[in-house]
Amino acid sequence: MQHTVTFTGENINATAQVPTNMLLADAAHLAGIDIGQPCGGQGRCGRCAVQVTEGNVRRRSTLRLSPVDVEQGYALACQTVVEGDVTIYVPPQERIERRLTTDRIVAEVTVPADYEYLQDQTVRRIHVQLTPPSMDDQTDDWSRLQTALRAQYRYENVTCSLGLLQRLGDVLREGDWNVAAVVDLANVIQGGETNRAIRIIDLQPGLVDEYSPLWACAIDIGTTTVTLWLVDLISGQVKAQVAEYNGQIARGEDVISRIIYASKNGGGEELRQRVLDTINGLLVTACKRVKAQPEHVVKATVTGNSTMMHLLLGIPAASIRYSPFITAVNHPPVMTAREVGLNSHPEASVDCLPGVASYVGADITAGVLSSGLDTAEQVTLFIDVGTNGEIVLGNRDWLVTCACSAGPAFEGAGVANGMRATQGAIEEVWINSETLEPTYRVIGGGKPKGICGSGLISLLSEAFLTGIVDKAGNVDLTAGSSRVREGAHGGEYVIAWGAETMSGEDIVISRVDVDNLLRAKAAIYAGFSVLADTVGIPLEMTDKVLVGGSFGKYINVEKAVQIGLLPDMDWSRFEFLGNTSVKGAYYALLDWRERDRVTEIAKRMTYIELSADNSFYEAFTSALFLPHTDLSKFPNVESALKNPTKA
Amino acid sequence: MQHTVTFTGENINATAQVPTNMLLADAAHLAGIDIGQPCGGQGRCGRCAVQVTEGNVRRRSTLRLSPVDVEQGYALACQTVVEGDVTIYVPPQERIERRLTTDRIVAEVTVPADYEYLQDQTVRRIHVQLTPPSMDDQTDDWSRLQTALRAQYRYENVTCSLGLLQRLGDVLREGDWNVAAVVDLANVIQGGETNRAIRIIDLQPGLVDEYSPLWACAIDIGTTTVTLWLVDLISGQVKAQVAEYNGQIARGEDVISRIIYASKNGGGEELRQRVLDTINGLLVTACKRVKAQPEHVVKATVTGNSTMMHLLLGIPAASIRYSPFITAVNHPPVMTAREVGLNSHPEASVDCLPGVASYVGADITAGVLSSGLDTAEQVTLFIDVGTNGEIVLGNRDWLVTCACSAGPAFEGAGVANGMRATQGAIEEVWINSETLEPTYRVIGGGKPKGICGSGLISLLSEAFLTGIVDKAGNVDLTAGSSRVREGAHGGEYVIAWGAETMSGEDIVISRVDVDNLLRAKAAIYAGFSVLADTVGIPLEMTDKVLVGGSFGKYINVEKAVQIGLLPDMDWSRFEFLGNTSVKGAYYALLDWRERDRVTEIAKRMTYIELSADNSFYEAFTSALFLPHTDLSKFPNVESALKNPTKA
Repeated sequence: MQHTVTFTGENINATAQVPTNMLLADAAHLAGIDIGQPCGGQGRCGRCAVQVTEGNVRRRSTLRLSPVDVEQGYALACQTVVEGDVTIYVPPQERIERRLTTDRIVAEVTVPADYEYLQDQTVRRIHVQLTPPSMDDQTDDWSRLQTALRAQYRYENVTCSLGLLQRLGDVLREGDWNVAAVVDLANVIQGGETNRAIRIIDLQPGLVDEYSPLWACAIDIGTTTVTLWLVDLISGQVKAQVAEYNGQIARGEDVISRIIYASKNGGGEELRQRVLDTINGLLVTACKRVKAQPEHVVKATVTGNSTMMHLLLGIPAASIRYSPFITAVNHPPVMTAREVGLNSHPEASVDCLPGVASYVGADITAGVLSSGLDTAEQVTLFIDVGTNGEIVLGNRDWLVTCACSAGPAFEGAGVANGMRATQGAIEEVWINSETLEPTYRVIGGGKPKGICGSGLISLLSEAFLTGIVDKAGNVDLTAGSSRVREGAHGGEYVIAWGAETMSGEDIVISRVDVDNLLRAKAAIYAGFSVLADTVGIPLEMTDKVLVGGSFGKYINVEKAVQIGLLPDMDWSRFEFLGNTSVKGAYYALLDWRERDRVTEIAKRMTYIELSADNSFYEAFTSALFLPHTDLSKFPNVESALKNPTKA
Repeated sequence: MQHTVTFTGENINATAQVPTNMLLADAAHLAGIDIGQPCGGQGRCGRCAVQVTEGNVRRRSTLRLSPVDVEQGYALACQTVVEGDVTIYVPPQERIERRLTTDRIVAEVTVPADYEYLQDQTVRRIHVQLTPPSMDDQTDDWSRLQTALRAQYRYENVTCSLGLLQRLGDVLREGDWNVAAVVDLANVIQGGETNRAIRIIDLQPGLVDEYSPLWACAIDIGTTTVTLWLVDLISGQVKAQVAEYNGQIARGEDVISRIIYASKNGGGEELRQRVLDTINGLLVTACKRVKAQPEHVVKATVTGNSTMMHLLLGIPAASIRYSPFITAVNHPPVMTAREVGLNSHPEASVDCLPGVASYVGADITAGVLSSGLDTAEQVTLFIDVGTNGEIVLGNRDWLVTCACSAGPAFEGAGVANGMRATQGAIEEVWINSETLEPTYRVIGGGKPKGICGSGLISLLSEAFLTGIVDKAGNVDLTAGSSRVREGAHGGEYVIAWGAETMSGEDIVISRVDVDNLLRAKAAIYAGFSVLADTVGIPLEMTDKVLVGGSFGKYINVEKAVQIGLLPDMDWSRFEFLGNTSVKGAYYALLDWRERDRVTEIAKRMTYIELSADNSFYEAFTSALFLPHTDLSKFPNVESALKNPTKA
């Protein structure tokens, strides 16, 4: 039976004809209305709530709704099905702020000193001159081109797509038997013993314009942010750097929510399209900056975690979620842009870098490459803290890795007043140890809206050092400040009174929030411990700690150590590297030796599955304290606790 | 400016909004009305004439219309543009009869005696058993499959499409880590020195069903007829043979008309779609007969003349038409059905056999293969008479070839009462030498509609032997029969009076028709002469004459010799082989050695361009007589002329 679903709201007036039992979320999709589903449609986040103003629906779950909400007609769009004609009010959606953390600093990227296009690059632009046909030489166009390539470049076994064959005759004649060809020599140069075919990517009539760039791009698909660097392969220079939120965010904020959403009917295809839209949008933006056309981009190297890679390629990711946590493919074959859906040159080669396991993806192998961990002489720790914390310990001789399900607490999720590091986020907090009054810094200035990851680390550290929370995370209600009080979720500390905030409501951190943060930092620290134990090297012995990910760029090391997120070492041993993933993709894009090195890194990395490791749970519970059960592991924090300084 | 074009006619009532100067043919297309354009829209055949009943049009050409026609509003749809609102009457279109010559006999095809699937076939169906994953073995699905293929079959460097990667995880789990794989070993077996990659075509969960067929097909794309044989690769047997008119006929009856149509805006894409529709329709029909699904077909081998091959692949064919007559590609790379547009298994390999030149295509190389010419000990002549006559002369040591633009006279075109060899066609004629009264046989019995190729040969021979036409083709008006008379196009002979015919009008052959037939047969015979001269071997010395093409199946050798179409030799030296092209495709489909042999044949064949050969014109003019200027070349005909028998 068909029902009419009418959607109303600010600038919203649409209807859809749907059968009984269709989800409101799907009905909205049909009506062309976008309702965000941050948890991927699991009914867990409550952020897709809409109000039923007329008609009947059936709620499968009201987990995130109070009885009063339900009485007022609220229902979760992802959990509620249509049972008759209904009218639905769609409240204003949370908007994703357009100010990205990665836009805060765009550092100039240095071309590797020894980059030499003709030696390092597998994609080449060449001029081919053909003998024109005559009555005495009626060779077909394709054989004629092959002959010329053999004579001029000693290229044997050249292949090209049907699309190029379709254009071949016109191109040869328009260029008067001169063509500028772009060829992919990867099989020959990288020594495929079994496949040494040379692929023609592009053919244009006439001579090669020696002075024009040869465009390619390095792409990092983060769960939250997609980054694209537009590169001229001739000079090796990065000519544009752009970043944008991953369009999949509206369908799940973490990888698990995405996998769940992708497993639904049509969900995988929708997520694929969303990330392609993001990437293709970035490609347009980057090309505009340098006055190029996306169709001129002839090569792309892609990194991202394993889930992002699967979703990009439309490969089901469901098995990543379930024990024994298997990916469909860790090292996808090199494909064409046409196959992948990239709006670059359709025959551009798209090289998705290899990952290691379900939760240690190509973003980490690329990070190891660009951080140089795999060539380090001393034992080095590499961490990339995002929604998950991926850790690699090793040197030029060995590499071990693991992934900790830290959860998205440090990205502002799972914390009542948490938010991403965008405009209005409190990014640093100082608390006066006597008055317990805070000072804070807000991204972009102005009134605060919430607290981002670096702000939470800073806040937790200050609250701990000033005694507002104890080592177990309890809020001390006797601390003697009106800012410390009993709230709806237990004890809480008010960072900003309603009068100062954008929403008019107090910004607080509660006992529940602290617990979530403790679990997140404990998971990461336990990862360090297990890896160090596995190879029998004390964590303190690591020579350097390399922190990747844009998150790492903004945290205060001292405070991250004080809460026990990072190991307690001399600051000089920490290095913050920013987006190591896109940088690794860039190196692999430029130089085939670097590209082969990524494959080598992926092969060398020994993956430790923490959920199968008996010592992990113990290490985790030991780390559920501030900074740790064993204070001897944090000598500097111990001394700070003994000699508190006044803020 | 937009105009409304209204189409009327039997079961026709449609309109289109079109801009000024749009062709009526294009307007009809927009309105969803199909108006045939047998000459490809050149304004030459006059068969797209429609009647303008209201409004203004502009006629670019009225070549095929009389002043009276124009006065009555007739206009050629392919040559007339809209200048205002108009109403167009579309007369009933010529219908293509659904009775194909190839349906007249479907001979059982014998599987080559030594066919051995496991030795000859490059496509194999194998069972693969994988080790299930566990916490101790978290290898990704794709690596796991590669490992199993290496362990069980020593397959290195296996590739698969993104589409298969997308299905991989589900297939492996559904089959409980057992899969039936179809793999393409062509690169390994056929010894690509530069590419030895093995391609996975299909993966299905579970065990291999040893008793089910492994489907493939051989396809011959004729200008007129498309033939498809459905083959079980395990047994090698042809399980179904189907044929259908090439859907492109409505847009041109010969290759030149097709090339012209394809060169128009969107014409190439339309022709591509039309032939794909024909092939995909045949695939459905053939599969239905054996209760298979088109998606189960995993391999296809395709032959056809060079123009047909270009149009199938959407490759512009324009350069074929102009001196120096160059194809874009003689030997297309092996492609997938997905790329080509075949509705078989999307990853099926589609192998278009190699041709030699613009007018000697894969149909001829395949014909040489299946006729065995390339292994003959004695000098042998192979001819395939269709719209063009392609000729190969040679033996196991050498092969020379040429193409004669015979024109479509023997397919019934260019002759006033000519028609294809379908229901209602006069296919054989006998004339009483005293009364000059004819007897004739009609395909399918019943009243005659016209005369097909074999009927024309028979008729011309009888008319010549009975003196109705002389050796120069003049009709003898003094012959003394009411059937010989002066007609609109000069002297003519009436084969059937209006009272006996389907249309009620006389069926005649005129002086003009005879001239067209003379030119056609002279072109072919001149081809023989030039080839024989090129290698310095008298035509009479050829050991055998192998006649390919379904046309050859129905002609009367004696009469073809009498008009000088075929060389005058003992009948025992002629062999009529039917569709040698599809048979060659079938052999190449089954056995990789035969497939390699086709490539070898294409390389060995020396192409003689007749239009650049000085001796051709002389040979042609000498052959413009019945049977030839030099009667000594036709000793049997000479003696028949001296001793006429009574019919």
